[in-house]
Amino acid sequence: MKRIVIVGGVAAGMSAAARLRRLDEQAQIVVLERDRYVSYASCGLPYHIGGVIPDRESLQVTTPAYLRETMNLDVRTEQEVVGVDRDAKLVHVVDLRDGARYDEPYDALVLAQGAAPLRPPVPGIEHPRVLTLRSIPDMDAIIALIDGGAQSAIVIGGSYIGVEVAEALRARNLAVDLVELQDQVMPLLDPELATPLRDHMQQHGVEMHLGTAATAFHDVGGRVAVELKSGATLTADLVVLAVGVRPIATLAKAMGLALGPRGGIAVDTHMRSSDPAIYAAGDMVEVTDTVTGEPALIALAGPANRQGRILADHICGRDAAYTSTQGTAVVKIFDMTAGMTGASERTLRRLGRPFTKVYLHPSGHAGYYPGTAAMQLKLLFAPDDGKVLGAQIVGYDGVDKRLDVLATAIRAGLTVYDLEQLELAYAPPYGSAKDPVNMAGFVAANLLRGDVALWYAEDYAQLDPQTTLIDVRSPEEYAAWHMPNAQSIPLPELRARMGEIEAAAARGPIRLYCMVGFRSYLAYRIVRQHGIVDVATLSGGAKTFLGFYHTSLDNGQPDLPVVVATASDRAAEALVGTA
Amino acid sequence: MKRIVIVGGVAAGMSAAARLRRLDEQAQIVVLERDRYVSYASCGLPYHIGGVIPDRESLQVTTPAYLRETMNLDVRTEQEVVGVDRDAKLVHVVDLRDGARYDEPYDALVLAQGAAPLRPPVPGIEHPRVLTLRSIPDMDAIIALIDGGAQSAIVIGGSYIGVEVAEALRARNLAVDLVELQDQVMPLLDPELATPLRDHMQQHGVEMHLGTAATAFHDVGGRVAVELKSGATLTADLVVLAVGVRPIATLAKAMGLALGPRGGIAVDTHMRSSDPAIYAAGDMVEVTDTVTGEPALIALAGPANRQGRILADHICGRDAAYTSTQGTAVVKIFDMTAGMTGASERTLRRLGRPFTKVYLHPSGHAGYYPGTAAMQLKLLFAPDDGKVLGAQIVGYDGVDKRLDVLATAIRAGLTVYDLEQLELAYAPPYGSAKDPVNMAGFVAANLLRGDVALWYAEDYAQLDPQTTLIDVRSPEEYAAWHMPNAQSIPLPELRARMGEIEAAAARGPIRLYCMVGFRSYLAYRIVRQHGIVDVATLSGGAKTFLGFYHTSLDNGQPDLPVVVATASDRAAEALVGTA
Repeated sequence: MKRIVIVGGVAAGMSAAARLRRLDEQAQIVVLERDRYVSYASCGLPYHIGGVIPDRESLQVTTPAYLRETMNLDVRTEQEVVGVDRDAKLVHVVDLRDGARYDEPYDALVLAQGAAPLRPPVPGIEHPRVLTLRSIPDMDAIIALIDGGAQSAIVIGGSYIGVEVAEALRARNLAVDLVELQDQVMPLLDPELATPLRDHMQQHGVEMHLGTAATAFHDVGGRVAVELKSGATLTADLVVLAVGVRPIATLAKAMGLALGPRGGIAVDTHMRSSDPAIYAAGDMVEVTDTVTGEPALIALAGPANRQGRILADHICGRDAAYTSTQGTAVVKIFDMTAGMTGASERTLRRLGRPFTKVYLHPSGHAGYYPGTAAMQLKLLFAPDDGKVLGAQIVGYDGVDKRLDVLATAIRAGLTVYDLEQLELAYAPPYGSAKDPVNMAGFVAANLLRGDVALWYAEDYAQLDPQTTLIDVRSPEEYAAWHMPNAQSIPLPELRARMGEIEAAAARGPIRLYCMVGFRSYLAYRIVRQHGIVDVATLSGGAKTFLGFYHTSLDNGQPDLPVVVATASDRAAEALVGTA
Repeated sequence: MKRIVIVGGVAAGMSAAARLRRLDEQAQIVVLERDRYVSYASCGLPYHIGGVIPDRESLQVTTPAYLRETMNLDVRTEQEVVGVDRDAKLVHVVDLRDGARYDEPYDALVLAQGAAPLRPPVPGIEHPRVLTLRSIPDMDAIIALIDGGAQSAIVIGGSYIGVEVAEALRARNLAVDLVELQDQVMPLLDPELATPLRDHMQQHGVEMHLGTAATAFHDVGGRVAVELKSGATLTADLVVLAVGVRPIATLAKAMGLALGPRGGIAVDTHMRSSDPAIYAAGDMVEVTDTVTGEPALIALAGPANRQGRILADHICGRDAAYTSTQGTAVVKIFDMTAGMTGASERTLRRLGRPFTKVYLHPSGHAGYYPGTAAMQLKLLFAPDDGKVLGAQIVGYDGVDKRLDVLATAIRAGLTVYDLEQLELAYAPPYGSAKDPVNMAGFVAANLLRGDVALWYAEDYAQLDPQTTLIDVRSPEEYAAWHMPNAQSIPLPELRARMGEIEAAAARGPIRLYCMVGFRSYLAYRIVRQHGIVDVATLSGGAKTFLGFYHTSLDNGQPDLPVVVATASDRAAEALVGTA
């Protein structure tokens, strides 16, 4: 009879335990969980704070008693593993309820301890109202403060947990300040995609403090004052720290297991550590990034669950392998959805990997059917063979769907030419005859085939001074807002005014733009076929441009009149055929 | 200068025209459309009838004038092509507004005439209130009758258009009867998936008449009486015929172009007909089925648009190819969504192709986050290598997303083992850490690896008389409903009662079931590992079973208490780990 000890009873650990039991009815399976709860819905915690999930019990998906009766699992809560004797294959355990110590023998040991919220060494951070959110007790502590009358909160960190907590606290009518070290929310997104999220959070009453950090915490009559690097001081009834997580590697280090370069447990494709009797899975391990091949720490529930399953298979003698993690993630931010899969531009630049990119702004479903809005889609792909490297999307309806299609495409090794051909489900409430993913494929493939040349918003400041910048939108759109130095030649007038463009081309480059990039693509085709070589169209148009330059360019200039312009672009897009 | 004539100005035709112009600024591009409208939103017509799309103008996505000014396209409406001189490369045209005849020369001719609604030769079908819905004038005629006081309607045909029209007419408060020849709605779905759709339509006030057909239409004081094969007669203020479409092949036949075995225009991978100067695309052509390789008529907007694009590329000297159509489709039916991609079981059986299948009922997103419901997912795959052959899903939230992921998987040639590993976007509002697509992969891969043996609902009537049928749900669930002849051994009691099961196994096969198939899978693993060989678990559980046998088994028996049972199964599913 095989004896298996699992340290940690949430995602990876419980997934491993359940799979082990299914594969081996005879094994003795012991799950040791430090906390009072196992297999709880950690991703649901912010939503119970906000009241979206009213029933606290629903977060406790199961109990040790139920696990025993259906799965014959020996699940023990409030048990801390304080050491492992790898030679004797013994786990040293402390029962946190009474301090009793005991040993548990194993044939295979599984570490699934997860990751812990970072608490940086900032003066005053030990203030009792500076909280984190990782477990049910953490959640209870935050709710207790709100129920006790807290009316304001400072969220430190603008990634997943931070934005989810900010939304939850707003739902409870607290005044919320959000502080983020980077100059954007959701730092895993490339910055231009984060701009609409920042605006949206501000519209929902979250005061944004980007590009700054907390340098000290002080008590002010029981409340917390947070000093910022920017010099400002914020005061609130509570602070939620959400500045990231770190693998819980103390035990593994003490045991002498090999760590990876990023500080997580090093594992092979079977999720086996440097000790062949010891496996690890979930947020505590280092994985291989699907796209870059680099070691990575990626704390996600889906990979954790699959890793638990795979190591269970391997313990039971199967040749299961976990290949890589691509970092597919999604987050709800008030009415918006944002997510990514594969590599970001920032990552590809950091690693010096060749890539190219396109931006587009398709609507979630047919524009004439109510309830849709434009999403911003950024696709990163290999300039040689067109292999999809990454995608990021922010928007409203249908964002998660396109993320999943693109995640599947990356996993399958598809190219942008394959995206052109995908046959996706279309009816007006769900999509368009040319789905956003198809459109991304069309634009990217056009680029690789040389049918279009693109310029990018970040190049605006470095444009050749001899450049003629042409806005091909309608005169009304141009009047409402245009890029500094742009002149207006509406698309319908373009053919008649080719003389002007030829004269400009004799002086220098021609750079075109419209609202989202479609009309200027049509303009590009006309200009290019008139023999003008140095012409390019702005990828993603003014909408993407404003994602880059919102802060620096909106000094006094009105925002884009989005509704008018979108209707106009929709008419232009109709040219590609409808149904 | 190339002269290109396109016959038909909606999806395929207009997509071709727009792409041609982008690739060839100099070409003369003439689009001849018989109707008064081009490039209109044909898929939106039912939604304007129902009032969901209030603005009729929004269906006319563009106009000939706009197409001329932006794309320099010569788009002519109300022009009928009455003949083609293939030797002289001349199209004979009649201007329907004044009867004038003229010829239009071409270097390349594109046929994109679409398909026409079938009007079977049933006596009385020419009644002026027996309408079809394919064009804007068709829509206007239906709306005129409703605005004129029509209070009841009979929809004949229960596929896409039929169910969409039925929903639209209910939204206008008409009494609606739906008549369908097959014994199910949505005949492209396998029948067991259609059962919940039928029930849902009935709950929304559509009177269902399945397995029957109209045999005659009579005028009754201006209204229409429909005699049914069943002997019943229905009377209503209008009838909408939606019994399918047929390629508009009259012109192609008169020209002597080759047709395919299904009656559509035969084309090569460049969408070129048997005459190399003549292309065809959209609903009028025969395509190759992605999964079966068989010729097929598949009228879908997405493929039509892509075919138009591909033939435009080929006309311009590029080597673009259209490989196949997999039939990905989705439909909204009141609050439900249903769809499919790839081959159905019916098709695979008809062709004698080997396949196996699994059913599951995952929820659209995390069960503890509000607004989700179980979907029914059927996955068809190759028994040898696990290649995904087809999928069908009916449910509420997240159906279209999983269809698109599975459609992408089929296009990429993925297997069920790949589905296990897909890394899809998870947050509680969007999915589960183990997404429904992952779950489908787990169940299917378990089957192929021999970790589970399944039995299927359709085998119920043929079970070996010595079979012991065991319901492993709770006693409460068993008491509320159970399969005839089933005995109750709740999962938590199973290990203690193995003696009973061993005794039963000595007599004959053991067949297990629960609500959705998860608890009985756990039970299977226990029983099988106790050395019992002839044991199998019901794929999809009682929920799938009721999809098969609803009609024959619900004589007096209450429906399943779905809420209670789902909560219980959710607890069981928690065993596979959460996050």
